[in-house]
This record gives sequence, structure tokens and C-alpha cells, in this order.
Amino acid sequence: MNERQIIEYITAQAGPADGQLLKGIGDDCAVIRKDDQRVWLLTMDTLVESVHFNRAFHPPELLGRKAVSVNVSDIGAMGGKPVFVLLSAGMPHGFDETWFLAFVRGLTEACREYGCFIIGGDTVASPGGLTFTLTVIGEARADQVLYRSGARPGDSVWVSGPLGLAAAGLELLSRNIEPENRAFDPLREKHLNPPARVALGQELAASGRVHAMMDLSDGLATDLAHLCKQSGTGARLFAPDLPGLGMLAAAARRTGCDPLHWALSGGEDFELLFTASPEERSTLVEVAETCGLKIVPVGVIVAGAGVTLIQPEADGTQREIAISYQGFDHFRNGNGG
Amino acid sequence: MNERQIIEYITAQAGPADGQLLKGIGDDCAVIRKDDQRVWLLTMDTLVESVHFNRAFHPPELLGRKAVSVNVSDIGAMGGKPVFVLLSAGMPHGFDETWFLAFVRGLTEACREYGCFIIGGDTVASPGGLTFTLTVIGEARADQVLYRSGARPGDSVWVSGPLGLAAAGLELLSRNIEPENRAFDPLREKHLNPPARVALGQELAASGRVHAMMDLSDGLATDLAHLCKQSGTGARLFAPDLPGLGMLAAAARRTGCDPLHWALSGGEDFELLFTASPEERSTLVEVAETCGLKIVPVGVIVAGAGVTLIQPEADGTQREIAISYQGFDHFRNGNGG
Repeated sequence: MNERQIIEYITAQAGPADGQLLKGIGDDCAVIRKDDQRVWLLTMDTLVESVHFNRAFHPPELLGRKAVSVNVSDIGAMGGKPVFVLLSAGMPHGFDETWFLAFVRGLTEACREYGCFIIGGDTVASPGGLTFTLTVIGEARADQVLYRSGARPGDSVWVSGPLGLAAAGLELLSRNIEPENRAFDPLREKHLNPPARVALGQELAASGRVHAMMDLSDGLATDLAHLCKQSGTGARLFAPDLPGLGMLAAAARRTGCDPLHWALSGGEDFELLFTASPEERSTLVEVAETCGLKIVPVGVIVAGAGVTLIQPEADGTQREIAISYQGFDHFRNGNGG
Repeated sequence: MNERQIIEYITAQAGPADGQLLKGIGDDCAVIRKDDQRVWLLTMDTLVESVHFNRAFHPPELLGRKAVSVNVSDIGAMGGKPVFVLLSAGMPHGFDETWFLAFVRGLTEACREYGCFIIGGDTVASPGGLTFTLTVIGEARADQVLYRSGARPGDSVWVSGPLGLAAAGLELLSRNIEPENRAFDPLREKHLNPPARVALGQELAASGRVHAMMDLSDGLATDLAHLCKQSGTGARLFAPDLPGLGMLAAAARRTGCDPLHWALSGGEDFELLFTASPEERSTLVEVAETCGLKIVPVGVIVAGAGVTLIQPEADGTQREIAISYQGFDHFRNGNGG
């Protein structure tokens, strides 16, 4: 039983929505009616030691920041602004107090930067290792909320920045590979302290030009498959358009990993993935520039189902490969396309 | 650094409230303005394997129910009605699917009984053991919300049912003590499947007669000390009035534990603790009867600070013992009062 099957089972048990709930399980956030103009957005994410982070190389301040980022990223991905945070902190008895205080400092600092603050939570003993769960409550204008389900055939597929950096950074950090030069810095930083694109998400939602949006937490191949499934569409990605491959090259050589695999399947980039009509291109680029970000079109939404990757061959032809969800598994272990 | 110190540190870091937040850290729930008449209540509680539950004797359906009860109890303790639930489930890879499905069945069944349902969450790998965090969102009428801070000198202190049963049940279950007769059943049941007094909490809030309320999760000595601290008062408890000592007698004999220690320091009873003017006695008893419950007065709120226990001696005199927070530690290990 994988995460998707568990979620489907829980969804089936969850019972019918009531009038206050606009969206339950199945998007980046649950959406609750706040008043005539506004909604509440609710999201919850857990970080588990040795699964989501390794204390050997993750400074506590940055982990505290990341615990906030991974949650507010979901709020931004629906066009909202984070407001309140609940924190459940699980730690072994007698755990290093200095470490925990630094974690809380990073966490509250990130909260301030994103405009939200802690209003409650729980602290528990956790003999199996550190575990942190945050619930973040955000708000958005009801007429601006962006769901995964709004993509339309013909839409351009956009991402808000380079892909695969976090996965590459994690590989370098896990294998304790020392940087030769500064080329590894942005990769390591992307794993340790990923920024959430909250301001961009809000601006894109306010622009009224975007049809569907989500954040990239599980990798482009899987996340775009989710978006397509919710929208009742398929999508086609163009391998040469994927941003960040150049930034991954040195790390790929050093580790023997495939940069295309990182870009398509690497999780935790926390960039935004969104779709819009192709004629909105220049408007969207300008919106992103106001946030200091360079968005990149990587493919198109098509009728049908499933995500495919178009890859030009040396002989001038091109291959189309199914990559939805686990469909990209044949790229695993760096054995190429 | 204990839980209280951690919470104080986080509170200090949390920054100022905004206009939407009516109550942050420090009560059973955070309270957010919903509209002119109503508020949202938010609470979060985590259950960790081998800390909060033992899979060897905790059936998964009942643990699923308890995960809901411990959370909705906080909503009821402020006079609210649970509405939405977020669930984060952490499990080791390849964890027993049948167990987890039974857990989810119990959880969703309890949600239905309390009138709330799951709207989102997270599932993660947790190699160190099972861990479940729930966030429950409830609602209440703004003019009826009951805080810990409202107790007044002269108030009677009430509890909604027998005390110490959950702690006694846990002792029996942990030591695998087989019941001789049915006397242990309510104790075991109280640990495995404690009901939350949500309906009573709502009725008491609606009655307008209660000054302060919270739920009993950490034991009467500690929880009443919290309530007193928030109210700027002290309290005096009368040992002979504590309900449930008779129900604990057989288990105390069998285990060599002190029933008074269970009643004062045993956690997880999830009964309500509340205060009201003495002249409301008959009204409150009637309100509880409409919920099928028998509430019991156990002491009085006094000016000053700290919680004391009045205990009659064999010679006709009485002793007054300080028992706030860890002040009751000298009762630990069953070595009597």
C-alpha cells in the first residue's frame, strides 16, 4: 500500500463534505469558506528524521526554516498567504536542547518572513527520533484560489525555476562529497533551505491568468501526473526545455547520476508548477519578474491522459516516453533514458 | 527542558497576535475569529508508539478512536463542536496494512460520531515506529467560548467523571494483569478508548454558567494548576470528594499502586475540569444529566496561587498538601500520601 492508495482509502472513508468545505483531500490544501470574499487554506506536512532529513549534515536553523517552507509552499501553490502555524515537535527524552532551540529559532524566523506565526501545537517524547509536523492555515480570495484541476488542453506548462537541484544536493550531502568549487552550493542549499514561492503564487493567482497550479514536492513526473489526473488531461514535456540541467552537470559527473532523472523525478524542489493559455506568456513572465523569478515553459497540456517526455535523438528524430508517476522508474539508478 | 519550558520558549518566539487571533498558545485550542457570531477552534495532538500507546495491547480500531478523542476533547473543553480533521500518519516501510486499515476505520468511525471528518493531511515513512498527529478544527459561538483563565475565587471546581481510571487501566494493561472479575474493565477501557466529553462541553458553554474549563489530559494536579495560573487564582481540593477512588481500589491492591496518586496525577482521563459559582450547582448537575453524565464538585477556587489538597487525618485533624504541577511528585511510585 503506497501513499496514494492510503490517501484513496482515507478519502473513501472520510464521508461527504459539508457546505463550508470547498475542497477536501486531493489538492495542496483543503479549502474552507471563510466569508463571502475569502477562504481558509489548510495544509499539514511532517518531517521525519532519517527519512526527510539527516541531522549529520542539516543545521537545525535551516531545518526549522525548511519545516516552514514545505508547508507554506502548499499555501502559495493555491494562491494564498500563510497566516497561522501549529507545530507538533517529537523528540527523544533528554534531547540536545541547543539543537532544538536553534531549530525553533529558524522556524520562527521563517514564519516571520512568510508572514505567519505559531498559535499552538504539541510537544511529545519520540524515542524513535525527531519528528516535526506543522499545520499551516492560510487565506486567499475565494475567486482567486488555484486548484490542480483547472488545466485545459492547449495550456502551456510552466515551472518557477530549475528542477532537480534538491535531489542533487541531497545526493552530494548524503555521500559527503566536498564541493570542488561553488557549483554545488545552490544544490546543497536547495536541499537544506529551499525557499517557498509564496509571493509568486499569490501574484500568479491575482493575475487571473493561471488555470491550474501546485507545488513540486514529489518531482515533475509525479506531480504533473497528479495535476493532469485532476484536470482530466494529459501533458507532454520537452526534455531540452527543462530548466536546471546545466546546473546539475558537474554534480551528475561527480556522482554518476543522471541529471534528467533528477530533473524529472527529484523531489522537494518546491518550485511552482502551473498551466495557462500560451498567449499569457509575456504577462506571466512579467509577473514572475516582479517577484525576482524567471519562470520557464516546459511543455503543453493535451487531451487524453498521462504525461510523456519528448526527447530529440541524435539522428534528428524524437522519442516520446511515458513518465507519469512510476512510469519514470526506468530512469532510476542513473541508467539514462 | 520540559514540555512547559519548550512551550514558553516557543511562545516567546511566536510574535504578536493579529486581529483575527483571539487566543494563541496557552489554552486547549487556539481561537480564531470566524465571523461576528462564531470562532474557529484549532488543536493538534500527537500519539507516538511506545510513548502514548503500546501495539501489543491496543487494538488498532480503538487507537484510531482514541486519536480522535484526545483531539476533539480539546474542542469540547472550550465549548466547541469539532468540524474538520487533518491527519498525519507516520509508519515504517512495509507496515502491516490490515492493522492500519483497522486504525483508519476506528478513526473515521469516531469522526462520524463526533460530527467531524478528514479533509487532508500527510502520510510519511517513520522507521522509528508509528506516529499519528491530528489537527482538529472546531467551531463555537464567540460569546460562549470557555477559557482556562476565567476562574474566580469562591468558584466550585467540578470534574465530569471519575479520575485516575486511565492511569490504572494502563498499569494493568502494561503489566498484563488479567482481570479477576469485571472490576478492571472500565479502567482498561478508559485507557484504550476514552470518550471525549464534547457534548457536555457544548452544553456547559451554552448554559452560560461556567467560568473556566479545560480537559483533564495530564492529571488533575497539573491541569488544575494550569487553570489556576491562567486565572490568577489558587485552588483547594478535598481528597474525600475525588470521584472514582472506589473504582480504583481493586486495581490498586493488585498492583500495589496508590489510588489517590492515580486520581490526582494520572493523565488521559479526558474528563472536563470546570469552575462555576456555587449557586449554579443544581443547574449544572441538570445540564450534565441531559448528557447522561454525573458531574462532581471536588474543591474550590481561592485567592492566591497554587493547588493544595485537603486530607482528613484519622485523628480528626486535616492536612493541606501543595500538589501543583510536580508538587505531587512525592506521591510517585505508590508510596502513599
